[in-house]
Amino acid sequence: MAAELPKKYKAAIYDKPGTISTKVVELDMPEPGPGQVLVNLTHSGVCHSDLGVMTSSWAGLPLPTEEGQVGGHEGVGKIVKMGAGTDAAAVKVGDRVGIKWISSICDSCPACLSGHDGVCFNQQVSGYYHPGTFQQYVLGPASYVTPIPASLSSDAAAPLLCAGVTVYAALRKSTAEAGNWIVVLGAGGGLGHLAVQLASRGMGMRVIGVDADPKKQLVMDSGAEHFIGLGEGDTVEKVKELTGGLGAQSVLVLTAANGAYATSVDMLRFGGTLVCVGIPEGKPVPIASALPQFLIAKECKIVGTAVGNRKEAIETLEFAERGCLKAHFETKKMEDLTDVFQQMHEGKLQGRVVLDLS
Amino acid sequence: MAAELPKKYKAAIYDKPGTISTKVVELDMPEPGPGQVLVNLTHSGVCHSDLGVMTSSWAGLPLPTEEGQVGGHEGVGKIVKMGAGTDAAAVKVGDRVGIKWISSICDSCPACLSGHDGVCFNQQVSGYYHPGTFQQYVLGPASYVTPIPASLSSDAAAPLLCAGVTVYAALRKSTAEAGNWIVVLGAGGGLGHLAVQLASRGMGMRVIGVDADPKKQLVMDSGAEHFIGLGEGDTVEKVKELTGGLGAQSVLVLTAANGAYATSVDMLRFGGTLVCVGIPEGKPVPIASALPQFLIAKECKIVGTAVGNRKEAIETLEFAERGCLKAHFETKKMEDLTDVFQQMHEGKLQGRVVLDLS
Amino acid sequence: MAAELPKKYKAAIYDKPGTISTKVVELDMPEPGPGQVLVNLTHSGVCHSDLGVMTSSWAGLPLPTEEGQVGGHEGVGKIVKMGAGTDAAAVKVGDRVGIKWISSICDSCPACLSGHDGVCFNQQVSGYYHPGTFQQYVLGPASYVTPIPASLSSDAAAPLLCAGVTVYAALRKSTAEAGNWIVVLGAGGGLGHLAVQLASRGMGMRVIGVDADPKKQLVMDSGAEHFIGLGEGDTVEKVKELTGGLGAQSVLVLTAANGAYATSVDMLRFGGTLVCVGIPEGKPVPIASALPQFLIAKECKIVGTAVGNRKEAIETLEFAERGCLKAHFETKKMEDLTDVFQQMHEGKLQGRVVLDLS
Amino acid sequence: MAAELPKKYKAAIYDKPGTISTKVVELDMPEPGPGQVLVNLTHSGVCHSDLGVMTSSWAGLPLPTEEGQVGGHEGVGKIVKMGAGTDAAAVKVGDRVGIKWISSICDSCPACLSGHDGVCFNQQVSGYYHPGTFQQYVLGPASYVTPIPASLSSDAAAPLLCAGVTVYAALRKSTAEAGNWIVVLGAGGGLGHLAVQLASRGMGMRVIGVDADPKKQLVMDSGAEHFIGLGEGDTVEKVKELTGGLGAQSVLVLTAANGAYATSVDMLRFGGTLVCVGIPEGKPVPIASALPQFLIAKECKIVGTAVGNRKEAIETLEFAERGCLKAHFETKKMEDLTDVFQQMHEGKLQGRVVLDLS
Repeated sequence: MAAELPKKYKAAIYDKPGTISTKVVELDMPEPGPGQVLVNLTHSGVCHSDLGVMTSSWAGLPLPTEEGQVGGHEGVGKIVKMGAGTDAAAVKVGDRVGIKWISSICDSCPACLSGHDGVCFNQQVSGYYHPGTFQQYVLGPASYVTPIPASLSSDAAAPLLCAGVTVYAALRKSTAEAGNWIVVLGAGGGLGHLAVQLASRGMGMRVIGVDADPKKQLVMDSGAEHFIGLGEGDTVEKVKELTGGLGAQSVLVLTAANGAYATSVDMLRFGGTLVCVGIPEGKPVPIASALPQFLIAKECKIVGTAVGNRKEAIETLEFAERGCLKAHFETKKMEDLTDVFQQMHEGKLQGRVVLDLS
Repeated sequence: MAAELPKKYKAAIYDKPGTISTKVVELDMPEPGPGQVLVNLTHSGVCHSDLGVMTSSWAGLPLPTEEGQVGGHEGVGKIVKMGAGTDAAAVKVGDRVGIKWISSICDSCPACLSGHDGVCFNQQVSGYYHPGTFQQYVLGPASYVTPIPASLSSDAAAPLLCAGVTVYAALRKSTAEAGNWIVVLGAGGGLGHLAVQLASRGMGMRVIGVDADPKKQLVMDSGAEHFIGLGEGDTVEKVKELTGGLGAQSVLVLTAANGAYATSVDMLRFGGTLVCVGIPEGKPVPIASALPQFLIAKECKIVGTAVGNRKEAIETLEFAERGCLKAHFETKKMEDLTDVFQQMHEGKLQGRVVLDLS
Repeated sequence: MAAELPKKYKAAIYDKPGTISTKVVELDMPEPGPGQVLVNLTHSGVCHSDLGVMTSSWAGLPLPTEEGQVGGHEGVGKIVKMGAGTDAAAVKVGDRVGIKWISSICDSCPACLSGHDGVCFNQQVSGYYHPGTFQQYVLGPASYVTPIPASLSSDAAAPLLCAGVTVYAALRKSTAEAGNWIVVLGAGGGLGHLAVQLASRGMGMRVIGVDADPKKQLVMDSGAEHFIGLGEGDTVEKVKELTGGLGAQSVLVLTAANGAYATSVDMLRFGGTLVCVGIPEGKPVPIASALPQFLIAKECKIVGTAVGNRKEAIETLEFAERGCLKAHFETKKMEDLTDVFQQMHEGKLQGRVVLDLS
Repeated sequence: MAAELPKKYKAAIYDKPGTISTKVVELDMPEPGPGQVLVNLTHSGVCHSDLGVMTSSWAGLPLPTEEGQVGGHEGVGKIVKMGAGTDAAAVKVGDRVGIKWISSICDSCPACLSGHDGVCFNQQVSGYYHPGTFQQYVLGPASYVTPIPASLSSDAAAPLLCAGVTVYAALRKSTAEAGNWIVVLGAGGGLGHLAVQLASRGMGMRVIGVDADPKKQLVMDSGAEHFIGLGEGDTVEKVKELTGGLGAQSVLVLTAANGAYATSVDMLRFGGTLVCVGIPEGKPVPIASALPQFLIAKECKIVGTAVGNRKEAIETLEFAERGCLKAHFETKKMEDLTDVFQQMHEGKLQGRVVLDLS
């Protein structure tokens, strides 16, 4: 099968990092190294973090992005070649697999051994100092690529590999149980509408979605039991009313606004859990509602979560396979990427964009 | 047995709440109501919270303390009479039992059903709008008083009913496991030296104690593996050095200083848990290290804990019975109480004071 | 309100325990004791365990049933009077509440403190050595009766107080998570069809129901993803096929057949959990598939569960209030009770029977 | 460094599998493959399972052992060479590492993703169809060999890599907490004396050791609070007496006798957990005390555990480093191996044997 592989293939690179600009170029076909597989990608999601990486504007990046970087971190395609030492791997040539934000981990540092993939001391990140998924071929570890369920199409799977997995991990860290109330701040966003679906349709939770008024329909269609529009009055009081005066068992902050964090703890009932997902831009500000007095009196918890791990990725796709989880997306070509980023920057995009790389 | 009870008995009341002043008076013997037991107290601990209640200076109090309030919330004595409807109770006349900060709960609100005694919607508090333990006789629910193990003396048990139970509950909420590192901020204090003992001798954790230099001996004697003196340099860096560069699995804040909270999260390794126990005085201030960015990147947790529940009280005393837990205390008389509070206020007390009420 | 209570009321008693026979008699109105409420029952479910108690044929009973016993343990009605010492109770006169198999616990023994109501050392059982719910008035502890959600009718609530709560507790002990496979053995029975509903519609699990062929429709209507008819071939092999070759994360045995237990462990994947609920009649027989070799090689678990606790009862009714759980029942009169038991004995009943006691 | 490696090295092979016979031979130096390290072993423990493998007498083996098999699964030595694709590994040339029963896992099957290393669908086993540790050089995955703490000697570490890790995993699966009672059946054996040490000195549990009388001293020296000699009367009753009438929170079966399992569940209190570790020889027999009736009435659990995972291996050695865990062993040479097995077969060995391979 390897004999049929072309020598060159197409990729979209950041030709002028710091600005919104991509360029489609031809790259040499790579060889899978020890433990690696070569994947022929057909689809890649385009995520808001990619925009942050390209323009080096995202607070979380330790270093500026390099010229020529292939971005992207939500790719799906078929394995076309296996590297040495992959005989015992769970995947084989012909399998469809996915590439995530974390593209490889060491499987042996303390973080890996605790299932905290996103904190692996030796991790590589797709599309940032490691070639990403805005290209037709990519390398990944045989033990770390994510198998795609047979009945889930590749374009539908792509955007779930980042947004879907992240909210599933957040929902698990919430420790909210079936039948519990969970408030989703930013319920109509890219992460939010997936969180509402997973919580309500997948995990049996009762969801109160909070977002700007125009998002109401999307939030309710996603399975929320109630919607609270921003600016419609005191959100904390409304949450308490809807939950029998007690507050919710959990609150998910999926927006990147310090303001969302400011009152989030107040929406919790005794023993409840605030889950931090959205990373505010600019200078870090303490969570205004993280007062020792309050946390102690209510015996509440706050927990941060970065990305989901390998197991959570597989489980997220299983929910999608069963129809509990579906991202809204439109399909574009690799050549449209700069334009997509431009629209994303201007806030004009509805739902996610998936690139057809074939 | 009821026939032998005196008509009157001695109690120390707050005769001028708002100031440091107590007065020993005679009170009428009460009758145990439905579900209650009458306890002949022989010992009561004197806690710093009592001082706060007496002087109405503690931030946590919703209302000013009333004149004539019998304070105290760490009492031990023998049951001398049972009220109606106590036939199925686990205790009987002659049993030694203890009274805690929470003197009764409703056993039926959502907080009670989740084991959050300290958040019970219908709780009563010993020594604050409910008669406390600075008296020779007190009433308590048959189902809520804490049985004292046979081999544990009453004076040794008294101070554990508040400080001991509180730190045990905090250690459990830390989710630190045997073999894990836990940093105790305020390790030489009334709560601290008990937390160090319980963590190291009772629960198999590895303890790093942090406090002012003169407390070093007490902290190390209590079982700490390392001591870091305040003002000896960068505490966060020292914690990292001692834990192989990773930070601790948990940090307990047992002091009431906002400053202690300010760097506490930084001492944690990925996935670690900060436990909030000490309630800072004055206007509430957000935990300076509770930054969404940091909590997300490290996948760390923050949790507040008020007091332990009934089950934790029993388990705390079992650790004490086996010698894993021992409060430092000196014994005083009821008549000395004002003087004790005066010394406490001036910071002159070493260890805890236990009143001999007999 | 108490003034309006009649002096006498109607009750159905076991007049000839050991045989199928009940008799409607008039009893004196009782007074609520300390901590108790008096409930004016309007409905009571009739459970198969009642038949076992009446005929003293059930293996689990330590003593023969006494003549004159008022049976029944699934009652719903309104509180009409409160006993002494109930001021802090979460319920009040006029509230609708439910009575369960366990009618009272001591709230202070080790089992109670661990949430194991069904193992309380001082428990009382409704309808066995304590008056049950086949009567118009019954006493219960203010802290232990179960509040009924406003929108849930009393007749629909009654049968859930035993069967519903039991299967919910079993599903929780299964540790199966949303998205996991659970096999329900006896999926079309009184417990089974409720377990299928709760697991699939309430808790997000994927259900494989196993029962005799005629039950297929009921099982599928209850939310099962697959049905396996008994006698249709190798059930273990079918379970493996349906679960990708791995077996299920959990298996619930809701039948009382030793044969169901015999192969139950074989249906589990590595790390899976078998939950034992059904109590086989006759001489106890070890679980044939509980082989150390197998449990070790697969790292599987077996767990027994008796009844749900107070918190689980409340949560079960919340699921019912939202429509996730609905028992099939027909309504009869107190005078029909002997006939109902006769039909139950002959296996002629479809679904549950609820007595209208008004 | 690779240049200095000899071309040949010494290994002990099973020259006549099925009988007790080993032979020291010279083997060709292997090259580390992709992802592998080459370890220069200095010590290997000799375990009873090795005897079972050599003589093909162990029930757990699917296939007869092959002629020429290098046995052993508790090896310690230094990494001398790294294979391709190991740049991100947590270990490097010169590090001391250990080899366990499971020598490699796939890191991607469902079992691996759940931390069940011993159930990995693609595992390799040291000393059975994969070269073991009775040799001077061995290959292992860079991500799976176990780092040895600096202050722990290699000979002391070797026997902990199997027996130590296994009992630590079992203690964790027991869910017994600090302060809980745990009964160890076979407390004086190779696994038993380590379990007693870890439970009591490492994890804060209270241990009741059960074994034949001559083992009493070893069991008590290992940290047990009580010892019950076999044949000294009713063990179940003694356990109940020592635990306040309740029974223990957990029971570990570390012997391979069906008789030990027969009464094990009876020693548990409500909600307690039986942990199965010892694999009885001969035809599998159901656990005689695994009666649905009993498990249900007491709400007890039974759980099986095979071997510990990578994380548990690291933690076990940390306990050893701190002195909480120490195997009794004597040192022998590779040439003595047949003799060692002969003595093991005759039951003449005291403690473990460690081969000096240098």
